[in-house]
Amino acid sequence: MSPEGKGGGPGHATVRVLDCTVRDGGFANGWCFSVDFVRELYEALDRAGVDYVEVGFANARERWHVTDPQPWQWVTEELLRGVLPERRRTRVAVMVDTWGVPDGAPRPRSHASPDLVRVACRLDALEAAVGLVARFHEAGYETSLNLLAVSEIPPGDLSAALARVARSPADVVYVVDSYGHLDPQAVRAVVGRFREALPGKAVGFHGHNNRQLALANTLVAIECGATFVDASLLGMGRGAGNCPLELLVGLRDPSHRTLVPLLRFLALHEADFPPRSRWGYSLPLMLTGLLNRHPREATEELVREFVGLTVTRGSLG
Amino acid sequence: MSPEGKGGGPGHATVRVLDCTVRDGGFANGWCFSVDFVRELYEALDRAGVDYVEVGFANARERWHVTDPQPWQWVTEELLRGVLPERRRTRVAVMVDTWGVPDGAPRPRSHASPDLVRVACRLDALEAAVGLVARFHEAGYETSLNLLAVSEIPPGDLSAALARVARSPADVVYVVDSYGHLDPQAVRAVVGRFREALPGKAVGFHGHNNRQLALANTLVAIECGATFVDASLLGMGRGAGNCPLELLVGLRDPSHRTLVPLLRFLALHEADFPPRSRWGYSLPLMLTGLLNRHPREATEELVREFVGLTVTRGSLG
Repeated sequence: MSPEGKGGGPGHATVRVLDCTVRDGGFANGWCFSVDFVRELYEALDRAGVDYVEVGFANARERWHVTDPQPWQWVTEELLRGVLPERRRTRVAVMVDTWGVPDGAPRPRSHASPDLVRVACRLDALEAAVGLVARFHEAGYETSLNLLAVSEIPPGDLSAALARVARSPADVVYVVDSYGHLDPQAVRAVVGRFREALPGKAVGFHGHNNRQLALANTLVAIECGATFVDASLLGMGRGAGNCPLELLVGLRDPSHRTLVPLLRFLALHEADFPPRSRWGYSLPLMLTGLLNRHPREATEELVREFVGLTVTRGSLG
Repeated sequence: MSPEGKGGGPGHATVRVLDCTVRDGGFANGWCFSVDFVRELYEALDRAGVDYVEVGFANARERWHVTDPQPWQWVTEELLRGVLPERRRTRVAVMVDTWGVPDGAPRPRSHASPDLVRVACRLDALEAAVGLVARFHEAGYETSLNLLAVSEIPPGDLSAALARVARSPADVVYVVDSYGHLDPQAVRAVVGRFREALPGKAVGFHGHNNRQLALANTLVAIECGATFVDASLLGMGRGAGNCPLELLVGLRDPSHRTLVPLLRFLALHEADFPPRSRWGYSLPLMLTGLLNRHPREATEELVREFVGLTVTRGSLG
């Protein structure tokens, strides 16, 4: 971690805030953001002292057999150079899944736009993820291992996984609450376990809002020593969405000065956000959060099954 | 407090949950609920073990010079008797403002439907509120004094107010976060002050969701000893809304059994709820929460002023 990567408001210099509006928010609009949107977002985040912006997945799109992907779903080095030719304090992150990554050494960091590569994996892909972390670390990047769906990992398996990750060169290891299941007490416990098992590494937290606890859980994670936290503007993200960045920044900076560029961006780009029905709290997503299930299972049928009703009617709010 | 008024899930028998879907949610739809809606809501709440349902304001409508009020804004004894002729465990609450209350003794509790009368007041109406509490207490009701806009009361004034309330017969004294300004740390402090200053009384908490902290703050309030908490289905309520009842119940009952009647009610009555645009998180309401201002000031102009933009465009999300 370079010492200039500060932010998140006065008195909190050791906590890094990462904006995932484009990468996770892209689930709500098919990653259909204009170049201006991303460029002005970068400016706003930089002015607000947000430490990182995550701009998409860096997997190779040809591996996905996708013919017409949105540019911000699988970002290329060419795109990043064109959109963000000049960089300020805010660093650039990309996410990498364990599949669809070309073999061989990654482009060296000195010849690439991203500063931080975040390798996301479920427990069953841990070995592949650790391997990727090592490759990107070797190539000079800051690295993070983002352990998905932490709420469904049995305690014994989690201990083994953390022991394995502790021996990897990952700079940061994230608790990812993919299902939006964790409550503040559970966050306290799991962040504590990560910290204990990962001496010398930073612990991160990425929440989802199925139970309207993403912000509160993020605050608890910080209180328990997490030093990397994710958030997105308006909470835009997959399913119920993420911790809203404007709320997190508003809470962490009593002067409210760092909030101004973010609200200014939102005021100017309100029409560029997808309709609110595309992400956020709903009964089906509340129920998957409660039941500790993947958001893809969030359907009206699930609600009606849960309450013992025959499935016959229209959409649930 | 009668001992049969339990609920809120196993292991939490001492915390009373009050549903304010009709009373506070009515701000979102002009209190336009059908008789069936309220009757079935009562059944669902009773099955879910929710301790109280608040059905509106009990002020005298003639004092308001209202010619065509919605029935659930200013409820009458006749209406309540017609809609809820048979009562189960869930008790009935009404709210009373300090103005518009007829002089003289209230109808004795034995001849009236409400069990609990909640007197809501801002600091400057405290004496009138304490007087009303005494009158309703005298008439046999459980009473609560709900101190509005607690976040803007200077510490010295709050001490004096609590000392005054401590000498009143109120059974419960509520921290009301009218502006949705409090964060969990502030809730901890203020609930602690209420508890210390009000020996022998129950402390309540009523949150608003401007900063998406209503649920988290309610959990913190309970942790700090509040034993009355308010929530509403889908969080429906004035401005950004309240703590969502289905989330609170889901968190407090690990078996999830008590959630079923609530979700069943929601599934069957989805079309009877006003559109989501009528309450809930928005940038203007986020900003009034942050700035500790009344939700009536939540306008696009406020956001644009805050960020230094000329006010010219459409609605902000």
